[in-house]
Amino acid sequence: MGRARPWIEAFAPATVSNLGPGFDCLGLAVRTVGDTVRARVGEQPGVVLSAVEGDGGKLPREIDRNTASVAAAWLLERHAPGQGVELQLTKGLPLGSGLGSSGASACAAAVAVDAALALSLPEAVLVEAARHAEGVACGTPHPDNVAPCVVGGIVLIPALEPLRLISLPVPDDLWLALYTPGCSVATADARAVLPSRVSLPQTVTQAARLGLLVHALHEGDLALLGEAVADDIVEPARAGLIPGYLDAKTACLEAGALACSISGAGPTTFALTDDEGRARALMDILEETYTGAGVPGRGLVDRVGPGARVTSPPLH
Amino acid sequence: MGRARPWIEAFAPATVSNLGPGFDCLGLAVRTVGDTVRARVGEQPGVVLSAVEGDGGKLPREIDRNTASVAAAWLLERHAPGQGVELQLTKGLPLGSGLGSSGASACAAAVAVDAALALSLPEAVLVEAARHAEGVACGTPHPDNVAPCVVGGIVLIPALEPLRLISLPVPDDLWLALYTPGCSVATADARAVLPSRVSLPQTVTQAARLGLLVHALHEGDLALLGEAVADDIVEPARAGLIPGYLDAKTACLEAGALACSISGAGPTTFALTDDEGRARALMDILEETYTGAGVPGRGLVDRVGPGARVTSPPLH
Repeated sequence: MGRARPWIEAFAPATVSNLGPGFDCLGLAVRTVGDTVRARVGEQPGVVLSAVEGDGGKLPREIDRNTASVAAAWLLERHAPGQGVELQLTKGLPLGSGLGSSGASACAAAVAVDAALALSLPEAVLVEAARHAEGVACGTPHPDNVAPCVVGGIVLIPALEPLRLISLPVPDDLWLALYTPGCSVATADARAVLPSRVSLPQTVTQAARLGLLVHALHEGDLALLGEAVADDIVEPARAGLIPGYLDAKTACLEAGALACSISGAGPTTFALTDDEGRARALMDILEETYTGAGVPGRGLVDRVGPGARVTSPPLH
Repeated sequence: MGRARPWIEAFAPATVSNLGPGFDCLGLAVRTVGDTVRARVGEQPGVVLSAVEGDGGKLPREIDRNTASVAAAWLLERHAPGQGVELQLTKGLPLGSGLGSSGASACAAAVAVDAALALSLPEAVLVEAARHAEGVACGTPHPDNVAPCVVGGIVLIPALEPLRLISLPVPDDLWLALYTPGCSVATADARAVLPSRVSLPQTVTQAARLGLLVHALHEGDLALLGEAVADDIVEPARAGLIPGYLDAKTACLEAGALACSISGAGPTTFALTDDEGRARALMDILEETYTGAGVPGRGLVDRVGPGARVTSPPLH
């Protein structure tokens, strides 16, 4: 009786946000890992979240609390009122990891819903939907995960009202070693340790470093990029939440990493380098240090990649 | 009896620092106006300041208080111990104007002394000498005037220890309307009104805007540059020190300026545009507004220009 309801599958990548001086305004998408959402036209108006897998049962299933369904509901309300959508979420990313896990679910849902309902919405709207979901999930609708997650590459967000997304050049030879130690950091906790006010000189340094970072990307100068990835405000406040972090950073820098810092709210730690082999060596160093600190986890060597996209066509 | 002591003349340009989000870390050199210093080998060790002109008698003549002689003495002490130099300073810039007047005198002196004594010092050393002089003159050795004054163009200073100077691309069609209203703002006073601490979200916005500004310069995108030249921290604190400033800014933006803000500590006000004719029209608007506010002054249409340089060869 009913019309065919083909599934559309979308993938949204993990993201590394902050990148040193870019707290709450800069992030990048990686290539290989992320979350997947399948969406199809619903049998009735509104959002149905019919499956969540890969989260060990930890994520909320309620429509108004899961970031995938929250993003979908936001899109329906504004851009497809009266329509319905059914979602299935498969987590590829660990929760509370600093890899933009909650944002990736929201972005994958936004892209999948956009395609399933043939809305063809602009990227900025998909980012807004996912950002709204981030606000529900962690209390702060920060854009530095969801913007690169949707757009791909390295994205600067200079303004929120209206939302501005600036794609920055990506150096060809930029490699990342990523390691997620086996300890969870809730984004809310990682925000609670931040100073509410900072000194004017610290503000100057932060701004100047972000300027240097943007310059380094335009120049394709990775040594300069490494110099720019530094942060006297957020990283010192959060370092204590991650056992072994300061040792891991020291070891990476001694081994020649261009830079090493905390990805988003942590505990994922990233090191930058210009060579795949060196990235693997840095990942091994991170593995060794975090294992020594009693929080063994999971490592990854990756590059900057494209944004969230439909990965499988309609299945009739 | 004595050896010939030819004069070397050096010119150092006015500078516009801050440029919105670049407080204490960004500035540009203009083309047409600046200070001039003549230097020649001294008859005895140390610095002699034998003439100061164009300042209406307001500048200190003491060697350890005039920025030209302070910069010269700093250079001698470190790079030509036991040598002597005689200086003559001709001010082309008004004092306390926000055009980097004290810095320009110091930079002209540094370049003239370097040439007169054939020291061939690197630019970074000349900047350090001038920066030290700025510290003596106004209490803060900020680099955002003296760096572009020496190097020319648009300069980002991402770090002070060690000093890093980054020359940013200069869009071909960037024009400045500059107006110095007839009221003086002492740099020390302009610093006293600044907040000692700012909120974390304000820091994020400032950094993101500086990132956008650097991106806009690399892209040669003047509309984006105009968007980036905004400042919620320093400009609001200083606006009240300049009668008519907010009206002048509103009038410039309504007339199509890409941006309008305070140059350095003020009261000089700059507006950016992409056309010489529009720059002249903006200068007229600034003239009219400031005259209406009871502080008529002096206007200028200018472009970004080269740094401090020797302007006349040895005269035997």
